Amino acid sequence: STTPSTAKRGMTLESELNQSNQYYVTTGQAVIYKKPTPIQLVKVDYPKRSAAVVKEAYFRRPSTTDYNGVYRGKYLDFDAKETQHLTSFPLKNFHKHQIDHFRRCLKQAGICFAIIRFTKLHQTYLYPAALLIKAWDAQANGARKSIPLSTIQQDGFVIPNRLAPPLDYLVAVDQYLATINLGGSHEVK
Amino acid sequence: STTPSTAKRGMTLESELNQSNQYYVTTGQAVIYKKPTPIQLVKVDYPKRSAAVVKEAYFRRPSTTDYNGVYRGKYLDFDAKETQHLTSFPLKNFHKHQIDHFRRCLKQAGICFAIIRFTKLHQTYLYPAALLIKAWDAQANGARKSIPLSTIQQDGFVIPNRLAPPLDYLVAVDQYLATINLGGSHEVK
Ligand SMILES: [Mg+2]
Ligand SMILES: [Mg+2]
Repeated sequence: STTPSTAKRGMTLESELNQSNQYYVTTGQAVIYKKPTPIQLVKVDYPKRSAAVVKEAYFRRPSTTDYNGVYRGKYLDFDAKETQHLTSFPLKNFHKHQIDHFRRCLKQAGICFAIIRFTKLHQTYLYPAALLIKAWDAQANGARKSIPLSTIQQDGFVIPNRLAPPLDYLVAVDQYLATINLGGSHEVK
Repeated sequence: STTPSTAKRGMTLESELNQSNQYYVTTGQAVIYKKPTPIQLVKVDYPKRSAAVVKEAYFRRPSTTDYNGVYRGKYLDFDAKETQHLTSFPLKNFHKHQIDHFRRCLKQAGICFAIIRFTKLHQTYLYPAALLIKAWDAQANGARKSIPLSTIQQDGFVIPNRLAPPLDYLVAVDQYLATINLGGSHEVK
């Protein structure tokens, strides 16, 4: 058991999310998991009377984002990114296959977003995937290759840090869902 | 030391599902993937100018079922099982953690089911998780440790084999969803 302030200083975004997801599962609030990294197995030993040992394998590029699950009847799908930048989020933190996955999930009426942390500012936001895709596509037409922090603050949703869960992102999801229910569209135009 | 062989005579249920999911993604009908097997990495080499090589790793037991995704705004969650039996499906094909995962997803109003193949009969069914859980829990009270094929035929939904997709399970999902919309409950009592 550690004091939260100390623990948080060293906690990565991923470990905060994993702990939060565990908290949500335990408390029955949502069922969301990080997907395992896909591995291409090449050589596996099966020793007698003990567990199989992977002896040669390679990392494969995932086809999807890292996190998905179900929350009050909604399909949630997201990826988490940290940036050291102070005033904007560089779009190159995302890969094309992740953006394409978001497009597909949005077409199926999934709730899709990025969790973006400005590490040096100690600020974390939920940013809707539809807006991320808009910025992504605009690059090809000469628009900027990053999203200003001010834009993220205006169109995104603050995610509070807490004792438990460490990153209470369902609070931001609720706020985002409320804007969708009020008539805001989360579909890609 | 052996190479893990997926080479079985004919197509396995898993490969049919993977091909069907690929078909659904490509045609824009749904976004559903099999989760990668979780691996505990122990030793990874990072050679210069080439890809990282996993040198020692172990398989971990998954916390969830194998498949999930989004279909027309619904969260879908399922696992796939094959049996050589002719007249019933042994419940021991499922693990407790998979049943518990179904319970949690159902509480979040996810659409949860098993895909059960009677290999020797060349028959495949969608069987709702709520009914599977009911049979699972009844075991503890002395009930039978398998589900009769006749019960699966009565309460489940036939999954047709086709050219493309090889296993068109969304047809069965649609039928299942229709019964839910007609007032049938998919919640665990
Ligand atoms: Mg990631
Ligand atoms: Mg399985």
